[in-house]
Order: sequence, then C-alpha cells, then structure tokens
Amino acid sequence: MPHITLPEGLPGIRGPMAFRPETAKPLNELVDVLLTGPHTLSPGERELIATFVSAQNDCQFCQTIHGAVAAHHLNGDEDLVIKVKTNPEHAGITDKLKALLVIAGKTAESGKLVTAADVERARSHGATDLEIHDAVLIAAVFCLCNRYVDGLATWTPEDPAYYRERAALVAEHGYAVSAATTPQTAPE
Amino acid sequence: MPHITLPEGLPGIRGPMAFRPETAKPLNELVDVLLTGPHTLSPGERELIATFVSAQNDCQFCQTIHGAVAAHHLNGDEDLVIKVKTNPEHAGITDKLKALLVIAGKTAESGKLVTAADVERARSHGATDLEIHDAVLIAAVFCLCNRYVDGLATWTPEDPAYYRERAALVAEHGYAVSAATTPQTAPE
Repeated sequence: MPHITLPEGLPGIRGPMAFRPETAKPLNELVDVLLTGPHTLSPGERELIATFVSAQNDCQFCQTIHGAVAAHHLNGDEDLVIKVKTNPEHAGITDKLKALLVIAGKTAESGKLVTAADVERARSHGATDLEIHDAVLIAAVFCLCNRYVDGLATWTPEDPAYYRERAALVAEHGYAVSAATTPQTAPE
Repeated sequence: MPHITLPEGLPGIRGPMAFRPETAKPLNELVDVLLTGPHTLSPGERELIATFVSAQNDCQFCQTIHGAVAAHHLNGDEDLVIKVKTNPEHAGITDKLKALLVIAGKTAESGKLVTAADVERARSHGATDLEIHDAVLIAAVFCLCNRYVDGLATWTPEDPAYYRERAALVAEHGYAVSAATTPQTAPE
C-alpha cells in the first residue's frame, strides 16, 4: 500500500504524478527530451540505458515498463532486454552502447566512480560528448524515478500485458502525452 | 577536468546545463516547483532537505550551494546548516522536519528503505501527504543532481564567497531565471 493516498488505479510513477501534476509536467518533459527526442542513439538504445539502471537499482516497475518500451522499439526482442539487464557485455548491442552502459551503471552507484578511462572507452567506440552527457543524465534521471516510485511504495502490477500495452502507447506518443491519457482499465 | 567539453567558467551543474539547455529547462522547472514554489514547508526547510541529501551523497558542489541557499533563507545561520548535515536529530529544526529528513535520507539510499513507521512518525508531527511526497521527490531529484554533477566531473569552486553570492541570486530569482543569468565573474 502506498505511503500516501494516491489516485486509484495508476501503477508505479503514474500515481504520484497524478497526485502532483506540477512536478509531473517538467519531469515528463525531461524524460521525453532524453528518451523520445531526436538523437544519435536510437529510442531503443536510450530505453535500454533506462532499463539497465532501473534493474541495477532493483526498481521493479521502472525496469519492467522501460524494458517493455525498449523491446517495443527493438522489434519485440524481450530476450535482448533481459540480456542487457543481466549480462550487457555479452548482449547483442554495439560496443558504444556497452561502454555507455558502464558509465550509466557507475553514475547510478555514484557519479564519482566514472573514470576518464570509462569515458575514453566510449569515445574509442565513437561516442560523442552529447551521448556521454546523456548516458550520465539518463542514469541520473532514473535514479530519481526509481527512488520516487519505491520511496512512496507505489503499486507495481504483475501482469506483463499491462506493460506491453502501456509501452506501445508511450512509444507512439511519448511520456508527457501518455501521462495525460485517460487511465486505461486497471490491469487486474 | 570535466569528462566532456563544457562551457568555461560555469561551476557544478551549471556547466552541463549550459551544454544541454533542452534538459536544463525542465530540470530547473522541477527544482523551482519543489524548492521555490508556494509551500507549507519554508524555502529554508526545503533547501535543508536538498542539502542533507547532497551531503549524504557526498556531492561537494550541491551540498555547498544548497547549504548556502538554505543559510540565506535562515538569516545566514550557517551553523544550523552544518548541524543538519552532521547531526539532524539534534539540530534546531522542527520535529516534523527531522522526520522528513529521515524519509529523505532513506529515499536517497534506496526508496525501499522508507517504512510505514517512518511515514507515521512524520504524520505524528503534522506532516501532510504533500509534504511527505515532496520530501521523497526532493531527495530523489538531488540523487539526480548529485550524480549529474559528479558523473561528469564538473568544476567545484572552493571559495565560499562564490556560493554565498550565487545563493543570494537564486533565493531572489529562483533556479530557472538564475540559470539564464549571464555568468558571473569566475570565482577564482
């Protein structure tokens, strides 16, 4: 049960976002710029960074919804998402993304852990300053989201169908618009 | 030296914010709603939560600038800021704020650590759902900011005068407006 009274039927971050729309608006805008805006990293790659960090932070809701959005962008390849969460160095992703995931994972633990060698590795695989910046900021933003979701003990649906349906909506419309969408039928 | 090439002369989070204004805009807006908007917690109390979390995360830039903004709001009481960072249970703050700091500190470590008893303690001292929500979200937002600042190895000025001057500007105008302000003379 959530620690505070949240609107009914809204899983994960959507409950507190509906409770406090003044903070939800800029937060959704921030996530949209990072994950759905024009970028040299594909939407699927950026969602994989968000999923990887959320898995490292053990946030069930965030890793499941962003994993579902990543899979949606990656032709439904849910196995790849699992591989990235559990063994990214051997996943079927680019060397550049592997290096960015190392930076993201360290940022999530503590920003101080990111070394010049980590950044050099990413650069050697073609990462730009913007991609390095965004890997750090995506990791930092999901450290926010994971704590927001779990710090208020929000509701985490268990049915994978909920996440797949929601992922399709988010992939098509982005986070800000989807947040404003009339709640779907509660999944269970 | 920062891990990526950032605009010169801008300390801490201001460098990456100038590098990526598209993400700086919603992030400043989010911080402004939480720290400078109308609220039942005073601006000084909310800045103390930001400072406490940033100290726990060992982010020198964030704990110093937000400590300076807190002190600015609290009649220049820098000793109180130090007390809150080091021994909040014995600091000269309300019992409600002490309870909210416990929630914020646990959120910063992992949202899962926040217990119903922590929330009940805050409620018993008069905390509302909104105050509990915002304590969690302020903590989560500073987990973002601390990682953003340190993950890119940004420049941390050492001169306390820089932070005091900047604090006065932020306290008067808020974060979004201050971010857009022409860079001050570099502090050293």
